[in-house]
Amino acid sequence: MHATPPPSRASANRSAVKRLREADPVLVDVQRALDVVPGMTPDTILTSGAQLDWPQYTGGQARAIAYAAIFEGLAADMPDAAAKLRAGHIKVRACHDHSCVGSVAGVYTASMPVLVVENAANGNRGFCNFYEGDSRRRLNYGSYDADVHRSLCFVRDVIAPTLGAAIRRGGGLPLKPIMKRALHMGDELHSRNAAATLLFARAVTPMLLELALDGAATQVRQVLQALAGGDYFFLRVGMAAAKAIADSAHGIEGASIVTAMAWNCREFAIRVSGLGDTWFRGSLPTVQARFFEGFSMADLEWIGGESVILETVGFGAFAQAAAFPLQSYQGGSAEAMVQMNLAMYRISADEHPDYQIPYLAFRGTPIGIDIARVVETSVVPLCDVGLAGRSGGQIGAGVLTPPLDCFVDAWKAFGQRYPDSNDGRPLNVQSE
Amino acid sequence: MHATPPPSRASANRSAVKRLREADPVLVDVQRALDVVPGMTPDTILTSGAQLDWPQYTGGQARAIAYAAIFEGLAADMPDAAAKLRAGHIKVRACHDHSCVGSVAGVYTASMPVLVVENAANGNRGFCNFYEGDSRRRLNYGSYDADVHRSLCFVRDVIAPTLGAAIRRGGGLPLKPIMKRALHMGDELHSRNAAATLLFARAVTPMLLELALDGAATQVRQVLQALAGGDYFFLRVGMAAAKAIADSAHGIEGASIVTAMAWNCREFAIRVSGLGDTWFRGSLPTVQARFFEGFSMADLEWIGGESVILETVGFGAFAQAAAFPLQSYQGGSAEAMVQMNLAMYRISADEHPDYQIPYLAFRGTPIGIDIARVVETSVVPLCDVGLAGRSGGQIGAGVLTPPLDCFVDAWKAFGQRYPDSNDGRPLNVQSE
Repeated sequence: MHATPPPSRASANRSAVKRLREADPVLVDVQRALDVVPGMTPDTILTSGAQLDWPQYTGGQARAIAYAAIFEGLAADMPDAAAKLRAGHIKVRACHDHSCVGSVAGVYTASMPVLVVENAANGNRGFCNFYEGDSRRRLNYGSYDADVHRSLCFVRDVIAPTLGAAIRRGGGLPLKPIMKRALHMGDELHSRNAAATLLFARAVTPMLLELALDGAATQVRQVLQALAGGDYFFLRVGMAAAKAIADSAHGIEGASIVTAMAWNCREFAIRVSGLGDTWFRGSLPTVQARFFEGFSMADLEWIGGESVILETVGFGAFAQAAAFPLQSYQGGSAEAMVQMNLAMYRISADEHPDYQIPYLAFRGTPIGIDIARVVETSVVPLCDVGLAGRSGGQIGAGVLTPPLDCFVDAWKAFGQRYPDSNDGRPLNVQSE
Repeated sequence: MHATPPPSRASANRSAVKRLREADPVLVDVQRALDVVPGMTPDTILTSGAQLDWPQYTGGQARAIAYAAIFEGLAADMPDAAAKLRAGHIKVRACHDHSCVGSVAGVYTASMPVLVVENAANGNRGFCNFYEGDSRRRLNYGSYDADVHRSLCFVRDVIAPTLGAAIRRGGGLPLKPIMKRALHMGDELHSRNAAATLLFARAVTPMLLELALDGAATQVRQVLQALAGGDYFFLRVGMAAAKAIADSAHGIEGASIVTAMAWNCREFAIRVSGLGDTWFRGSLPTVQARFFEGFSMADLEWIGGESVILETVGFGAFAQAAAFPLQSYQGGSAEAMVQMNLAMYRISADEHPDYQIPYLAFRGTPIGIDIARVVETSVVPLCDVGLAGRSGGQIGAGVLTPPLDCFVDAWKAFGQRYPDSNDGRPLNVQSE
């Protein structure tokens, strides 16, 4: 079937994929979420996954939301936070509905700084808040204590304003050259961002130098130290870029391309370009994981995640043959990584002309996950992810397998929405 | 045979390889060659390969030597340089005999700055002069004009003193962590140094910032620009490190491990740990090349080269499965790169415990090229190299295949020098 989709869907998918190919993400600013995130209010907290009512959030994700309320000064303590959330005095909203993407639990508050990435080819913007640092205990992993609080304040008061000043001074930083090169340097830009972080640091260093000479030497020293210390600094930049890329392909009539994947504590969910803002919700994913010393599968908890926006636009597991060093972080073998990467081409509508994988003879990364191909092949989009533990903090990393059910539901809805296309019909994989 | 070498050779080789494993190269300074290179004099020019008498140097290598004399102010023009070289008023010496290694023609003059790398595990030092920049026309490729002269002066007057001050301010820069990480980021540290250059730049940036704040802002801006502009800046740092590593394994009684490979315009040559400073000279190498647009094999000229010191200690072609992006630079396929890399294990006595290749499940790089294994298997040590053209300048890159003859000669000499070991006997590969 996928060789000959009905003309309307094929043409719509080409339009969607064209947006993915031509997207041109540029880091243009760093600002307070309240000032730039659409629909953000002082009493809003954004969290990962399809929107739930507050009582449905449980475990680490509920904790992260309540902790965020405390960090923001919206609540005095956990009982106070829970009461105000229950009463709706503190609002919980889905990141994706505000042009944001959340890392793990993904909590955003109004005062948090966000990276502002503009897609120069389309004019739309994507946002992401900041990497908290290399501690395994981080608010986005459902942890909160004096150290976590201090890290968040350091990001807000030192890293973000200094970096923002540097970016503005430089007139914005094009991200595509960095992401393109990082794929040639062992990154797949999701679970491995070591090269991209280095390239990013090198690109902003001249601007930071000028800031230091203008009197901000102390802050610049701290920013350089943070950039040198953390191999994941670029992850959030890449996520904002991926959101800006993916959103530009959303809302194209008749297109069966996935434009968002996310999970909350209860369900994995996807959005499809031609199916509006409906989340197609499925069961929770499974994972092939490698745990840090002292942890096991029994400690794993799903507390949300939207970093898979990177897979949605062809990075992460869709480029894992570019990142063999990941074996030591998330397990597996080089051969398995190549095979998994190749499988992603089966469910993708195109290959990116500029983002390339050296091991695969510079083949472009697979882009444009087509729900028709997923349902047809039963191959789901794999995702390279960090894993959260029941007691908070990161406990490992792995390759996540989303459920097929949400893709099947989306495909049914596609057939209902576009009956003339003869799509959405039950697919018999055996007959292919 | 190689499974059971005679006890004395086996034990000597273990000692030699132990030096390779334990070497700990640290960039400790940048100084004028005259001030730090052993035996350097104002009228000495160092060049690549086993020592020849002046009249035997021809083509691009002879030109590079004469140009170097002009650059240094030892001669007014080419006829003057030739006359003084012929008369011995300007002396030509082999880099390797002065703890230096030459890139391509490898010319050093007294006023040129050199990177000073100390092997902290052994106390010995290796030196290398500086990368001239990204132009294809460079003195080390036998080119000389106003631009080449300007680049050499810029390196001497701006890059070297500023970097030297930064290195001294930082108390020296350990190189092993940079080289180890770069192998996980697409470098094999010979024909690809993109990651190592980035890591090096990041490591020196804090020191450069302090220099800028102390009044050297103009120079620091230029150094940052040079580091950002050139993906090969680290090559010379790595070569000095490799020389410091290789020399520490040289001179071990009874060891059949190669400690230097080099070529001049006439011959490829090797040195062996247990065979003193004798060069075993063979024919010129062959090469599988990829040429820049407009060039072909007919334009190729051998004008010297000692960057293969990197292969001698387990980098370059010995780590090419770490650097798949090289396909676009020197040709070949990922599969061929893996096979060539695996072949290098057959002629190596050990695997490095710390320098690892992610694609090969983090297998250590092959180290300790054993002439016995080379002769036995007829597998020669492959080398990733840049290629020089007849009319000067770089014209491409490729994988070089040294001749077998110099290894056979060295093996015969080994048998004469160590008759009790029953080594050096003619080897019948078929009988293995």
